[in-house]
Amino acid sequence: MHPQRWGDPAAATDLPATALGLVELAFGLQDRPAVTDATPPGSALDATLLDGLRELVGAEHVLTDDETRTLRTRGKSTTDLLRARAGDLTDAPDAVVRPDGHDEVAAVLAWASEYRVAVVPFGGGTSVTGGLAARRDGFAGVVSLDLVRMKRLLAVDEVSMTATLEPGLRGPEAEALLAGHGLTLGHYPQSFEHASIGGFAATRSSGQSSAGYGRFDAMVVALTAATPTGPLVLGSSPANAAGPDLRQLLLGSEGAFGVITSVTVRVRRTPAVTTYEGWRWSSFDAGSDAMRTLAQAGLLPTVIRLSDESETAINLADPASIGGTEDPGCLMITGYEGTASQVDSRRAAVSAVLAGLGGAPLGTEPGEKWSHGRFGAPYLRDAMLDHGVLVETVETATFWSHRQRLYADVKAALQAALGEGSLVLCHVSHVYETGCSLYFTVAARQVEDPVAQWQAAKAAASDAMIAAGATITHHHAVGTDHKPWFALEIGEVGVRVLRAVKAELDPAGILNPGVLIP
Amino acid sequence: MHPQRWGDPAAATDLPATALGLVELAFGLQDRPAVTDATPPGSALDATLLDGLRELVGAEHVLTDDETRTLRTRGKSTTDLLRARAGDLTDAPDAVVRPDGHDEVAAVLAWASEYRVAVVPFGGGTSVTGGLAARRDGFAGVVSLDLVRMKRLLAVDEVSMTATLEPGLRGPEAEALLAGHGLTLGHYPQSFEHASIGGFAATRSSGQSSAGYGRFDAMVVALTAATPTGPLVLGSSPANAAGPDLRQLLLGSEGAFGVITSVTVRVRRTPAVTTYEGWRWSSFDAGSDAMRTLAQAGLLPTVIRLSDESETAINLADPASIGGTEDPGCLMITGYEGTASQVDSRRAAVSAVLAGLGGAPLGTEPGEKWSHGRFGAPYLRDAMLDHGVLVETVETATFWSHRQRLYADVKAALQAALGEGSLVLCHVSHVYETGCSLYFTVAARQVEDPVAQWQAAKAAASDAMIAAGATITHHHAVGTDHKPWFALEIGEVGVRVLRAVKAELDPAGILNPGVLIP
Repeated sequence: MHPQRWGDPAAATDLPATALGLVELAFGLQDRPAVTDATPPGSALDATLLDGLRELVGAEHVLTDDETRTLRTRGKSTTDLLRARAGDLTDAPDAVVRPDGHDEVAAVLAWASEYRVAVVPFGGGTSVTGGLAARRDGFAGVVSLDLVRMKRLLAVDEVSMTATLEPGLRGPEAEALLAGHGLTLGHYPQSFEHASIGGFAATRSSGQSSAGYGRFDAMVVALTAATPTGPLVLGSSPANAAGPDLRQLLLGSEGAFGVITSVTVRVRRTPAVTTYEGWRWSSFDAGSDAMRTLAQAGLLPTVIRLSDESETAINLADPASIGGTEDPGCLMITGYEGTASQVDSRRAAVSAVLAGLGGAPLGTEPGEKWSHGRFGAPYLRDAMLDHGVLVETVETATFWSHRQRLYADVKAALQAALGEGSLVLCHVSHVYETGCSLYFTVAARQVEDPVAQWQAAKAAASDAMIAAGATITHHHAVGTDHKPWFALEIGEVGVRVLRAVKAELDPAGILNPGVLIP
Repeated sequence: MHPQRWGDPAAATDLPATALGLVELAFGLQDRPAVTDATPPGSALDATLLDGLRELVGAEHVLTDDETRTLRTRGKSTTDLLRARAGDLTDAPDAVVRPDGHDEVAAVLAWASEYRVAVVPFGGGTSVTGGLAARRDGFAGVVSLDLVRMKRLLAVDEVSMTATLEPGLRGPEAEALLAGHGLTLGHYPQSFEHASIGGFAATRSSGQSSAGYGRFDAMVVALTAATPTGPLVLGSSPANAAGPDLRQLLLGSEGAFGVITSVTVRVRRTPAVTTYEGWRWSSFDAGSDAMRTLAQAGLLPTVIRLSDESETAINLADPASIGGTEDPGCLMITGYEGTASQVDSRRAAVSAVLAGLGGAPLGTEPGEKWSHGRFGAPYLRDAMLDHGVLVETVETATFWSHRQRLYADVKAALQAALGEGSLVLCHVSHVYETGCSLYFTVAARQVEDPVAQWQAAKAAASDAMIAAGATITHHHAVGTDHKPWFALEIGEVGVRVLRAVKAELDPAGILNPGVLIP
């Protein structure tokens, strides 16, 4: 991972010429090169302290060099990238520790509790909500607890169709191990290529195929976590009535309650057939209503997403190409995965409903194009940042009856905050029987202080979400960025519950301090 | 509700003559009449204390008469009934208070916290795990907080397909209100006729149609609860990544964290067509494997259950009737609900799979018979108790690969504990992609102390569940009866988490003391 950009440094690319032309037209081009010679502050942890850590995991797994620490500094929000590009490495950890297995993780937590060292669990480093920026005050230092050595497929149960995975596995690594058994998790968030299993669990991730495979938190049937108070081993059965579901308390705990050391997830057979196609809708409302109809009829494809008019126009670049008219309408992508007969029957049933509701089939070309580029957007963001364009996303979710208001209010808030000439795009990214998520992408010409520029827009959007009774985040977690609104979402008593759980599991408060808990 | 029997006193009945003959043959008949002149101990709460309560909810809603207190004593486990039949009313509350609405509930909790009075939330009174038997020691007394006045349908959202219900609504009352909008919850546990919405939520209930409608905890998208610390208002969206799912912490909290004052649940259109049918399998294993195949293919009926060989034989009384041979095999019930086309297509697809796996279709007669008697078993239990036969149930759940072991071990434990001549029957009552629940029914000739007789069998069965790594309860909650095994299931750290949440939400410890928290 590049310390100032997304993903594989070799995959970095400038915008294609046509896109560059559009960007110049819309925002003007600025040259915003990144500072390349920044170094992190020296490690605040002294040699004696670190020697204790080395005894626990082996000296070669306690790293304090600048490059390693730089690569574990913050996540991949636009704000994080802007700071990294400006050479700001003030959030660098003092050391990176790489334990192998539950017991070593537990030992590191005991050490950290004793010496009051903050611990930031690190999987893929792809947080976009400040989930890796621990509070330093009151601590002797900060260590990044890198799960890179915990990448095993611990068990496969092909009768129950479950697999037990270690948290350090990145998306493609987990899928490769499962593919050896003809199995798949089917979890493909945009961060898939770099994000980790532990991160998916700790942040309640939801993937692009969630209509078919479900959210990550719905896939988890068991988990183990190391906490300073002791081990948590949960998951006797798919579901039960044995008290509150404590699995759902650890899922979404963002490293603040413990370090998830394994998860047992429901798996499926690798699909024999995958096919993605496009549908055109006259309006965002018409397409959204069709999604609702499918969800409430129990008739969802594996993938379903719908771009609003603006996003459809921008993503097509040549708007006429999907509709044959100047009004491109709204593009919906539907995808089907499974056996040939499953795909055929589901596709036929869904297509009949969509056609009946006024959707126009566009064939597989738009679907294949989406599928091909599905993990690519973050690379484009880097190219845009190079040219002085601010690009960022926010997402929320609500019940169907509030969708229109939420869409209008958040869009208006972003547009007003970012000013004339900015672009606000949206798509429905995940659907449920009772509601859906809205995923906004913005682009604007950067001003002198783009971090402040974005923070103002983010605050306005967040205020609008809470005012509409919606969630502050559908699938990106709370981190540090969402805390003020998260407190409003769950209320004072909800916050007190989280604090009580935190105090019980992490009495020294060393686990990812400053994250999640308002 | 009869204070010593299940359900509507007018519906009480003796066994039919053929059944009585079989019971006599199997267990011998004993005359075990109930004590009918027992009265509860006098109220421990003095007039001054009760006057404070009367000011909060109105004098007419604070009841201390013997009949009302008797009717709020314990729940409906066989142990509860045996104690009630023996005239033991030592667990009677000192008063019954009937608040109307969230604010009055909150006021009662504040009063109880101030004067250290234990509060037992009361919905349908159908607990079978000792969930209504609060600990008395250290308290000035015990009040039953009866939710009988909170029976409103607060909101219907036909776009989002949700409804907001008050907790005091019994199953049929909620369905009748929803039917006025053409909607249904589809939640039909055996206790349906008497259990309440609040109870369904507080105990993570699962109904007989769970394959189609899901567990109750999966239906809840929002809830409000009154706690001594303040109100909890949860549920911004169908699902999100805004921290741990606190809804899932309140669901299953059994009145120990707060009183659920409303739930917003996903609803469905009232089905136009309902049809139930029978299938015969050569063995419990063959039928179970077929259920697993359906669940993992995403092809479940609305209802699916499978009796083992013993339960099939007993329930049919004339074993030859389903198979035409002396070996009745195992009876599976499948049910379909929805529009005509939904039912037709799902039924055809499921039937093709079942026939392909060796199932023999038995037509709708066994299905209609099951449907007709689906809420009747508790009445038969009373008749059996009248004749000196101990009848009780236990249920558990596990992953598919552990099903055979769990079945064999729990069955053997019950059989060994209850001795020769006892009957141990089982059915698979709920299925998931990764596992299923097993529901055991036992019958044995009562010995001198039937409570002790059952407690020994229950302990043996519970030990076997935990040893097999299964859950202590799939859909009957923890109550007081399951606490020792619940502690083993969630471990020491899990117990500490629950205690920490309890201490935060209920610092005086007045909420259902002795229930849930080990």
